[in-house]
Amino acid sequence: MAKLYFKFGAMGCSKTAQALITKFNYEERSMKVLLLKPSVDTRDGTDVVRSRIGLESRAVCVPADRDIYALYTEQYRDRKVVIVDECQFLTPEQVDQLGQIVIDYDVPVLCFGLSTDFQTHLFPGSRRLFEIAESITEIKSVCRCGAKATVNARFDDEGHVLFSGDQVCLGGNDRYMAMCRRCWLKCRQAQEAQGIFT
Amino acid sequence: MAKLYFKFGAMGCSKTAQALITKFNYEERSMKVLLLKPSVDTRDGTDVVRSRIGLESRAVCVPADRDIYALYTEQYRDRKVVIVDECQFLTPEQVDQLGQIVIDYDVPVLCFGLSTDFQTHLFPGSRRLFEIAESITEIKSVCRCGAKATVNARFDDEGHVLFSGDQVCLGGNDRYMAMCRRCWLKCRQAQEAQGIFT
Amino acid sequence: MAKLYFKFGAMGCSKTAQALITKFNYEERSMKVLLLKPSVDTRDGTDVVRSRIGLESRAVCVPADRDIYALYTEQYRDRKVVIVDECQFLTPEQVDQLGQIVIDYDVPVLCFGLSTDFQTHLFPGSRRLFEIAESITEIKSVCRCGAKATVNARFDDEGHVLFSGDQVCLGGNDRYMAMCRRCWLKCRQAQEAQGIFT
Amino acid sequence: MAKLYFKFGAMGCSKTAQALITKFNYEERSMKVLLLKPSVDTRDGTDVVRSRIGLESRAVCVPADRDIYALYTEQYRDRKVVIVDECQFLTPEQVDQLGQIVIDYDVPVLCFGLSTDFQTHLFPGSRRLFEIAESITEIKSVCRCGAKATVNARFDDEGHVLFSGDQVCLGGNDRYMAMCRRCWLKCRQAQEAQGIFT
Repeated sequence: MAKLYFKFGAMGCSKTAQALITKFNYEERSMKVLLLKPSVDTRDGTDVVRSRIGLESRAVCVPADRDIYALYTEQYRDRKVVIVDECQFLTPEQVDQLGQIVIDYDVPVLCFGLSTDFQTHLFPGSRRLFEIAESITEIKSVCRCGAKATVNARFDDEGHVLFSGDQVCLGGNDRYMAMCRRCWLKCRQAQEAQGIFT
Repeated sequence: MAKLYFKFGAMGCSKTAQALITKFNYEERSMKVLLLKPSVDTRDGTDVVRSRIGLESRAVCVPADRDIYALYTEQYRDRKVVIVDECQFLTPEQVDQLGQIVIDYDVPVLCFGLSTDFQTHLFPGSRRLFEIAESITEIKSVCRCGAKATVNARFDDEGHVLFSGDQVCLGGNDRYMAMCRRCWLKCRQAQEAQGIFT
Repeated sequence: MAKLYFKFGAMGCSKTAQALITKFNYEERSMKVLLLKPSVDTRDGTDVVRSRIGLESRAVCVPADRDIYALYTEQYRDRKVVIVDECQFLTPEQVDQLGQIVIDYDVPVLCFGLSTDFQTHLFPGSRRLFEIAESITEIKSVCRCGAKATVNARFDDEGHVLFSGDQVCLGGNDRYMAMCRRCWLKCRQAQEAQGIFT
Repeated sequence: MAKLYFKFGAMGCSKTAQALITKFNYEERSMKVLLLKPSVDTRDGTDVVRSRIGLESRAVCVPADRDIYALYTEQYRDRKVVIVDECQFLTPEQVDQLGQIVIDYDVPVLCFGLSTDFQTHLFPGSRRLFEIAESITEIKSVCRCGAKATVNARFDDEGHVLFSGDQVCLGGNDRYMAMCRRCWLKCRQAQEAQGIFT
C-alpha cells in the first residue's frame, strides 16, 4: 500500500535536491511524477524548483486555498507519484487532501520540507504531516560545530540571531543558518550578556 | 554530546516495555537512571510503570506544574540518564526543561510516548518533542490488516469508533486500538453510511 | 508485501527481549507466531528463549541441517509471522529458506541477532541476512564510554580482551561485552604495550 | 565522536548524487572534503565522479594496493571529512584504514556504494563496512513493481537475467537494473520454464 511520507530537515540540508533526485529516480522507472510547490500568492501556476547544488525542475504551484485532491483528480490522474517541495507551507487541509490521494488512488506522496521555524515552532503543514504521515524520516545536516543541526536560526543584518518576529519572512535564505540547539542557545546567552535582546 | 530523544508509537506498540528495557540496559552498564512519568494530579510521588508484557519499575511521578530541570538538579544529579514514559502528557515547558538538562549536564534524555490522540492531533508534549528533539524515531506496530498502525482509535461501549470528545479520557486503554489510517477512515465511512455520527 | 527483516545489534542490546515483545504484539492482534531458534546440536526440539530482563517463551529449535521452508510448510502453515532469535547461527541456506517463506506465503519473517563475532567478522547467517533482507535495522546499545557499541569483545579469565580464537565459544555470555570500536582498539593497544598478545 | 558511515543502496538509487550532495553540504559549512573513488587499475590519479542526474566532481582515485590511511596522513590532513563513492570496490584492508582515520583524527568517513553483486553476494568492501561501520543506512529505491529494490540484476544482450558470471563486469551500468527479490526470482523461474539457464 502507498504511504504519505514526511522527509523533514533543517535549512541547507538539501531537501530540494532530495526531492528532485527522488523525482528523477521514479521517472527513470517510467513512473510519471507530479511535482508540487505551495505558492505564496493566490494563483495556480508553474514555477521552477531549484536546489543550491544546481538541480532544477518545473513544478505546479498551489496556493493555500487550492484543493489538491481535486487538482490531482481532475488534471493529474496519470501521475503515479506526487512529490511536494517546501511542504511546510501547505495548509493542514491540504495535507489531509494529500493523505486522501494516498488512500483513494494508492499513489505515494512524498513531502520534503522544514519541520520548524526560527523560533523552533512547527509550521502548520509540518504539524499535520507529523500527525498523519505513515513514514517520518529526517534528512540530516551538520551544525558548524559538527553536531546534528536541528534549529533554523534567523539572523538580522548585523549578524544577530533573532528570537522574535513573523514565522515567514519573505526575502530569502541568506538570513538563515541551520545550527544545533546547543550552539543556538549559546548565541542567545552571548547576545543577552551584551544586552542584545532580539 | 548527549541528545534529547523522542521515541513515539501508537497504542500497544510496547513503548513502556521499550522504556523499561532501555533502563535495564543502562543500569547493566552501571549508569544510574531517573525514570519519570507525568502524573495527572498535582502531587509529586512514586508510582509503578507497567508494560502489558509484564515488565515493571518504580518511577518518579511529576505533575504538570513541576519544574523537571529543578527536580533533576536538586535531587537526581547522580543519574546519568533520564527516561520518560507517557511523555505525551508532559507540558511544552517540561520538554524544554528536559532539553536543558541534556545541554547543561550532557545527560541523554529518552522520551517514550504517543504522538497523536484519537483525533490524529498531537499531544502538547509530543508537539514540543517533535520541535526540539535531536533524535526522532518511531516504534512501529501493526494494524489488524497488517499495515503499519499510526492512528489511536477510540471506541465507545458499542464498539463504534469515536471522532469527537476530550483529548484525554481517563479510564483506560481498553477503549483504544491502534489502526492504520486507511482502516480508520473506512470505519468512519461505514459508520456514517449507517447514520452513526460519533 | 511481507518482508524479511534483519534486526541486528551487539551483545546485551536486548535483542531477545525485542524478539519476545514483537511476538507479544503480533499475538495481541490474534496473529499466530512461529518462534524459532537455531540449535547447536542436530535434533529438532523445543527450548525456552530467555531475555536477561526476565521475559521468556518456548521456541522451536532448528538444527543447522533442518530445512526451515519444509518445516514451515509441513507443520506451521497456520502461523502468520515467523520470528527467529539468535539468527546469526542460521546457515546461509536457512536464511534463503526464510526468504522463500516470505515470498511464497507473504508471511513476515523477523530475524534478531548479532552481526559480528568477537573479531568483528560477520557470522554466516548474518552475512546472508545483510545480502537478502528487505529491511535492515540496528538495535542500538551503548559502550561504557557512552558511545554506540558495535564490537562484541570477548574476555579471558584474567579480563584480557581476546583477538584470536574460535568464532563460537560455548559456555556463556559472561565473557562478552559490547564496546565501541574506539575502546576496543584502545584495549588492544594497552595490552600490547604490556606485552600481552591474545 | 566521528563515525564510519556505510550508506548502501541498489543500482540507480542515486548513491553518487547523495555523495556529491553530502560533499556540497559540508563545503557550504567551510569544511574541506576529500572525495575518494577506488580505481580499477594500479595508478593513483584524479577522475571525475558523475551522477546520472547531472552532478559531478573531481575525485582522488585509489588503487586496491594504496594505503588510504597513509594517503590521508601524508597529503590530506587538512580535509575534515572523507567521502568515498563506489565503496564496494574498496579492499577490506582499505576499509580498516578508513576506520582508523575516523578514530585517530576524529574525522567522519562516509562510504556510498552497493552492498551486493548480481548474485546477491556482498562485495568485499561492503562486507567489511557492514562489519565495522558505526552507522549503516540504506538509500532506498523502487523496483518496477513499486516494492523496494534490493537486488542488482544483471542482463545479457538478449535481456535475460544472469545468475552466473564474474562479480565485476566492466563495461557499464546499462546491463543492470535494481529489482525486488520477488520480481528477480520470478524472472529466474520464467526463464527456467523456457529452458534458459543463465
